Amino acid sequence: MARKKRPEPDEFALIARFFRPLAAGEKGAFALADDAAVLDIPRGARLVATTDCLVEGVHFLAGVAPEDIAPKLLRANLSDLAAMGAEPRWYLLAAAFRFGTRPAWIGRFARALQAEQKRFGVTLAGGDTVAAPDRASFTVTALGIVGKGAELRRSGARTGDDVYVSGTLGDAALGLRVLKGELRVAARHARFLAERYHRPSPRIALGRGLVGIARSAIDVSDGLVADLCHICETSGVSAAIAADAVPLSAAARTVLSAHPRLLADALAGGDDYELVFTAPVKLRPRIHDLARTLGLPLTRIGRIAGAGGRAARVRVMGADGKPYPLPRAGWRHF
Amino acid sequence: MARKKRPEPDEFALIARFFRPLAAGEKGAFALADDAAVLDIPRGARLVATTDCLVEGVHFLAGVAPEDIAPKLLRANLSDLAAMGAEPRWYLLAAAFRFGTRPAWIGRFARALQAEQKRFGVTLAGGDTVAAPDRASFTVTALGIVGKGAELRRSGARTGDDVYVSGTLGDAALGLRVLKGELRVAARHARFLAERYHRPSPRIALGRGLVGIARSAIDVSDGLVADLCHICETSGVSAAIAADAVPLSAAARTVLSAHPRLLADALAGGDDYELVFTAPVKLRPRIHDLARTLGLPLTRIGRIAGAGGRAARVRVMGADGKPYPLPRAGWRHF
Repeated sequence: MARKKRPEPDEFALIARFFRPLAAGEKGAFALADDAAVLDIPRGARLVATTDCLVEGVHFLAGVAPEDIAPKLLRANLSDLAAMGAEPRWYLLAAAFRFGTRPAWIGRFARALQAEQKRFGVTLAGGDTVAAPDRASFTVTALGIVGKGAELRRSGARTGDDVYVSGTLGDAALGLRVLKGELRVAARHARFLAERYHRPSPRIALGRGLVGIARSAIDVSDGLVADLCHICETSGVSAAIAADAVPLSAAARTVLSAHPRLLADALAGGDDYELVFTAPVKLRPRIHDLARTLGLPLTRIGRIAGAGGRAARVRVMGADGKPYPLPRAGWRHF
Repeated sequence: MARKKRPEPDEFALIARFFRPLAAGEKGAFALADDAAVLDIPRGARLVATTDCLVEGVHFLAGVAPEDIAPKLLRANLSDLAAMGAEPRWYLLAAAFRFGTRPAWIGRFARALQAEQKRFGVTLAGGDTVAAPDRASFTVTALGIVGKGAELRRSGARTGDDVYVSGTLGDAALGLRVLKGELRVAARHARFLAERYHRPSPRIALGRGLVGIARSAIDVSDGLVADLCHICETSGVSAAIAADAVPLSAAARTVLSAHPRLLADALAGGDDYELVFTAPVKLRPRIHDLARTLGLPLTRIGRIAGAGGRAARVRVMGADGKPYPLPRAGWRHF
């Protein structure tokens, strides 16, 4: 049966109570009490827009705390803006809460969002709150700005470019294994890895710093190999990366020393939200400087080659110089 | 269990096959093959943004054809832009298809969206496609532009303003009754009413035409009384409307002659997506001209009064000059 689309009175009250404060920083959000937000794009800038949907039990574990949903929800979107070199400004939220969700839970969710807003300098500009029978789902549309012609694209990689990745890879995939009880590690490593899964760091400052330096960029959401493959496909090139060059955290190194097979998590696991980018060799000094300025490792892991005909778009080489065998899932986009 | 967030290979193929063509009109959508869209806001204009989420079995009947979902999904959002006096330009779509949804269904859904795009001059700028176990849900974020300071707001109504409504009211609520089998009417009326429910007409040209004329505006999604109440609350005024002034279609008049009680559907039923607006009395000639230019009835149904202390924000008067009794739901926001 179709029910009324609009929230019931107490849901209006919930919006006023919990979500209105999140819009306080933007006059054009009209305290969430109008039909739409009206937002100023600075002269000389362009709007950057992206949307992402998370479904309970599919993209986050059912029953997880709101404090573990809100950060990832926002950060996954901000990571897409980062990969374009954009400055995040606003977001819109469509929240479908499961029937019977307690106001206290919604309040915690909103407060967790507010902490994220403060951290990343974004403001809620609008939203929709509905009730869904079976499971929660949340859609965020993130809006940012970028200078005209300054955006980073996937399609700019050129033969001879270096391939870099920020931070460390594999932590989120290993963290998910820990959360699912598939992997037992020391408590401090478990905490670190789970945190990397729940609270990835969108590389916003890096993205903006790469404008004028990187020729192509993407964030690692599908996994290093798959995402680098997106760069190669849209750029009409191929890439070769060295498996042992992929940067690992201390926790991941500890896990991999016991389970070497899990190196595949660093190569093909998703959800790290680091940036993979390519840049001309002559810009190595600038990338070195940028890494130092940001206090963020930027690791050279390979090289862009020509289109390569029918060969794989992304080849991963082992320390022995032979192709590194990845589980099939890691190669699914080839 | 958390599964991979990203669509599986065949879903990448589905996006390329069905959704990429919808983004062809916007270069900055990068054929849906980058992390985000980069969009040009014309100089002197502001961005207008709104989001709306529809859940299967809640906001649309389960099992309904994609051709009956896509139009409402887009039009409900465009109606919010219309109520701001904005010109729609782009939209982002987060589509959660139920597990096992056939590609043919998704193709029909995309083609229905494409027909809507053509009709309303908007382009898909980005999206996310996921799979959900129990039921489909769709979130659209609509983006438009409006001249600086030209936007229509809910908060501008002043004592003495006329209250107008466009088109006819109650058709969608009666259409839903027909679709649910609660109401039997002649086939041609049934078709008309169901069509008004599935395919409302966002009053975009009207919204833009009202810039500089209307002091406040809102679209009728919650129902006339509730939505006019939103205007009154944000404007700090009250309103009195005449029940028998509310414009009705021929189909609705026929239904109401047999079921007079259903007049409540015209006063409190939602989903008509007409515009309610207020304007100074002296602008009656301009509104008359606008109605003629657009070929759209604009009916004066009441008047804005002062804040009214503890009295109801919106009073509905019957033909006998006495307060018209509305079912409680219609008054829920008072």
